[in-house]
Amino acid sequence: MVNSCRECVPCLRGEEQYCLKGSTLTYGSIDADGTLTQGGYSTHVVVDDDFVVTVPEGLGLDEAAPLLCAGITTYSPLRRWGAGPGKKVAVVGLGGLGHMAVKIAHAMGAEVTVLSQSLKKMDDGLRLGADHYYATSDPATFEQLAGTFDVILNTVSAKLDLDTFLGLLAVGGTMVNVGAPAEPLSLNVFSLIMQGRVYAGSLIGGIRETQEMLDFCAEHRIGAEIEIIPAEKINEAYERVLASDVRYRFVIDTATLA
Amino acid sequence: MVNSCRECVPCLRGEEQYCLKGSTLTYGSIDADGTLTQGGYSTHVVVDDDFVVTVPEGLGLDEAAPLLCAGITTYSPLRRWGAGPGKKVAVVGLGGLGHMAVKIAHAMGAEVTVLSQSLKKMDDGLRLGADHYYATSDPATFEQLAGTFDVILNTVSAKLDLDTFLGLLAVGGTMVNVGAPAEPLSLNVFSLIMQGRVYAGSLIGGIRETQEMLDFCAEHRIGAEIEIIPAEKINEAYERVLASDVRYRFVIDTATLA
Repeated sequence: MVNSCRECVPCLRGEEQYCLKGSTLTYGSIDADGTLTQGGYSTHVVVDDDFVVTVPEGLGLDEAAPLLCAGITTYSPLRRWGAGPGKKVAVVGLGGLGHMAVKIAHAMGAEVTVLSQSLKKMDDGLRLGADHYYATSDPATFEQLAGTFDVILNTVSAKLDLDTFLGLLAVGGTMVNVGAPAEPLSLNVFSLIMQGRVYAGSLIGGIRETQEMLDFCAEHRIGAEIEIIPAEKINEAYERVLASDVRYRFVIDTATLA
Repeated sequence: MVNSCRECVPCLRGEEQYCLKGSTLTYGSIDADGTLTQGGYSTHVVVDDDFVVTVPEGLGLDEAAPLLCAGITTYSPLRRWGAGPGKKVAVVGLGGLGHMAVKIAHAMGAEVTVLSQSLKKMDDGLRLGADHYYATSDPATFEQLAGTFDVILNTVSAKLDLDTFLGLLAVGGTMVNVGAPAEPLSLNVFSLIMQGRVYAGSLIGGIRETQEMLDFCAEHRIGAEIEIIPAEKINEAYERVLASDVRYRFVIDTATLA
């Protein structure tokens, strides 16, 4: 985000991502002056200082870059829904968002479980801070973990069986989606009612909370797991992203743009 | 409820309705001693005192009776989701549950809107404490009220267009269902994500909270709107309930059972 109306209720309480007039995204958005925003793949970007955050000391610029999406997108719902000591948090999917969710939830003091399609990335997940790792392709996972989690953070945009996943929540627990499939999902409302459960959505975070997240990450020494590429490898990196061959974010070295 | 395991996490925190072993309902449940519970349509009921509540002075036994279902079912989610001064609460449906939701949300200090299929019960709704009353059969209602409510309490079990109702929530707002249709609903998850919205379920309330609700109702002088019937009119009353001809709860005078 590089702008928002700054006058509506969400803007005034620091949730510019929910600006009622629509926030201005870094690329492909029409800014207040009518120009089209051009993104961050450049040597310079001019932005109002209300929308600038400070990367704290101790956090490399390269490992901090993906935090401005994957970091805040996972930090915000984990905070809102109370991830912390004594809480059991499940992270669905271990990709760009999921790997940050694991690091952040672990740093918040929660007991972290990864729910991934297979056990392929299990070593990674445990190294990043997960306490447990289960495959969602195994039906036994859903029996074994029924009623377990206080928070489930779903980072996967694929269509899933909502009622089955909601069954993993403890009484009063919350499942939050930060991505979604294009098609609607089917939901049996009794999945929510019978155990006082909650299903929520979350979109990145506000500027103030983004700064808070960066400070939190610096304090806990957690950055994104990255692979740095020069600008000329962008097309190749894009193909690798499509093939899920990235652990866990590509970062473009802007020095190679010049 | 007349019993629960009293040992599981929900029981220990006073949410006996979510007892992991299943709470024992007043009628048709197998109690701990293996007998079938017989309900409250009797001159005497023997219940463990952990499951007895006190009807405070100032609240008639007749108008208090329906509070043990309709009162607590609406009070609990209104409390959990922060109904109070400065908050806009919508109540979907003005029946047995809905009419108590209006009274309670109003007593909590919220600005209350009834969303009913038609304007038929509008006078009642306003008299019970609603500030506004809209018909959901009028598509203009959904345009006019888009993004308005902090809390929507849905007391209707009919199948509804979830995405359309979620569109009435303000940023970060919560819609809670206390009833549900038998068939699953369709949900576009973007309805939740794009404004940080929440969809939740709620089932009656715990014993401690039920007492709190009764004390709250006595303090605010709110009971259920009732029509008292003798036992011999039960079948007739049942037909009238099916025909929606009840404002808003029938109460059986147990003196007529003898």
